[in-house]
Amino acid sequence: MNLPMVVPDPSLPTAVTIYEVGARDGLQNEKVTIPTEVKAEFIGRLIDAGLPIVEATSFVHPKWVPQLADAGELISRLDLHGSVALPVLVPNERGLDRALEAGCDHIAIFGSATETFAQKNLNSTLDDQYAMFEPVVSRALAADADVRAYVSMCFGDPWEGAVPIPQVVAAGKRLLDMGAYQLSIGDTIGVATAAHVGALIDAFGAAGVGVDKLAMHFHDTYGQALANAHASLLKGITTFDASAGGLGGCPYAKSATGNLATEDLVWMLTGLGIEHGVDLSSLVATSQWMAANLGRPSPSAVVRALGTPAS
Amino acid sequence: MNLPMVVPDPSLPTAVTIYEVGARDGLQNEKVTIPTEVKAEFIGRLIDAGLPIVEATSFVHPKWVPQLADAGELISRLDLHGSVALPVLVPNERGLDRALEAGCDHIAIFGSATETFAQKNLNSTLDDQYAMFEPVVSRALAADADVRAYVSMCFGDPWEGAVPIPQVVAAGKRLLDMGAYQLSIGDTIGVATAAHVGALIDAFGAAGVGVDKLAMHFHDTYGQALANAHASLLKGITTFDASAGGLGGCPYAKSATGNLATEDLVWMLTGLGIEHGVDLSSLVATSQWMAANLGRPSPSAVVRALGTPAS
Repeated sequence: MNLPMVVPDPSLPTAVTIYEVGARDGLQNEKVTIPTEVKAEFIGRLIDAGLPIVEATSFVHPKWVPQLADAGELISRLDLHGSVALPVLVPNERGLDRALEAGCDHIAIFGSATETFAQKNLNSTLDDQYAMFEPVVSRALAADADVRAYVSMCFGDPWEGAVPIPQVVAAGKRLLDMGAYQLSIGDTIGVATAAHVGALIDAFGAAGVGVDKLAMHFHDTYGQALANAHASLLKGITTFDASAGGLGGCPYAKSATGNLATEDLVWMLTGLGIEHGVDLSSLVATSQWMAANLGRPSPSAVVRALGTPAS
Repeated sequence: MNLPMVVPDPSLPTAVTIYEVGARDGLQNEKVTIPTEVKAEFIGRLIDAGLPIVEATSFVHPKWVPQLADAGELISRLDLHGSVALPVLVPNERGLDRALEAGCDHIAIFGSATETFAQKNLNSTLDDQYAMFEPVVSRALAADADVRAYVSMCFGDPWEGAVPIPQVVAAGKRLLDMGAYQLSIGDTIGVATAAHVGALIDAFGAAGVGVDKLAMHFHDTYGQALANAHASLLKGITTFDASAGGLGGCPYAKSATGNLATEDLVWMLTGLGIEHGVDLSSLVATSQWMAANLGRPSPSAVVRALGTPAS
């Protein structure tokens, strides 16, 4: 298998944590119901490939995300106390109840940096979003779970356009102040470019939020995800969200919203000599297997280049 | 149309020249013969979209690249003395003769940084390659044409693996010493990562070859092209090769070798506040029109995201 020549850059971090979102963020919008055993096998394969954190599912109401209606059943098939963290997303207290009942102790919440997206996604105002999350976070912490907060629309918003940096920092700080251990800074519509990413990370730093509190979550809608990851590494970011095979959204459609493919990120990190712990060939094989299950090729460049055609 | 928020990075160049290779590098491997009038319209549209340099064709023997057998006929339809330079590739003296007869005064030659690729592509040794190029360059310069030199396999080679940086610098210097005004540093198989790119640019600098002599030519085989372009900007590079719509190679196949899409580069440069002179919506429309001619969608993320479905 081709691999990049390793040329380290001493100004970059020496190790990175990949937070794998393919099983939740990647699959949630799939129209055809994926059997629970396929999801469980997917997660097992991601763990075997060396991913250190694999977000497993979301305890969202099945009315909103029918694909993840089997969250409880899926979790019951997984080892929640192995060496790999298996966080779950919860939209509200009811979701938290279900997650805690299932034994989950890594919780993620999904906030918005913009008023319009809070309205569209959560049917709430920004203030109401915080009021809704507060008991979720406090009860999760009281149950000895940790909480990660996604912040969506951190660069652009389809209704509001460019999102002011101070607005994103303010949203992130409120979620950290509530008790989240990490923010996942989402370029939900993929419009960010490299210096915008750097400026936002700097602004968080100036507000007292260091890179150890930030994960970056890029979408490849305009092809910018990996360049933005490179810009983030230059600022010292050490956690990146990525999706095996680039699952998520519909990369071949006009409204392309594919997640950064884990394989493409792993290729870059490998070339940069940055530790990531992932076995690329196992991961490529996993994404090809999943692509066969979904009936379409992976949008990941690395999967396309290294993969053997599905039989 | 969505556009990125402009956030300049004062450490980057303020303007970049895009050397458009779609009409030559992008089309040369197409199996179905594209009519000369379609090629001429493609080039005209690229000029209208603001590209400052549009490589038009190659005066290679039709036996090797049948798609470009109409080079002379195509050139006769173009304005060689307009404001936009229209370079042509020539493989040897016979090609140069044809190019000069056609009135071309911007010439490109295509060299290799590795022994094996010189053998495979030119059926010569590395030393023979220089011997072959020498009269091409000297005669072109004597005819008041300028000469650009492509250097292929600058990062990895499918037969030799990783290519030592000093070997690439030595090859580039020989071509500059012959009289080429610029090197196009090619990651022909797309294996480069960001710090490898930076290290090669630094090595050229240490050998007395400044960034004003270098253009970077990236392929997106492993998704790295734009991250590598970002790394190049950080080193001060101001010329990038790119292919409208990402034409070139077969991006959906195992042997994916797509060129960096001009649109994806333009999106990044726009976001970084770097002048490029290209009208993105005209360019996207051009690539969609060309995709319709070729009968398959553009691999460019920006074209997919911004384009209207072909009617």
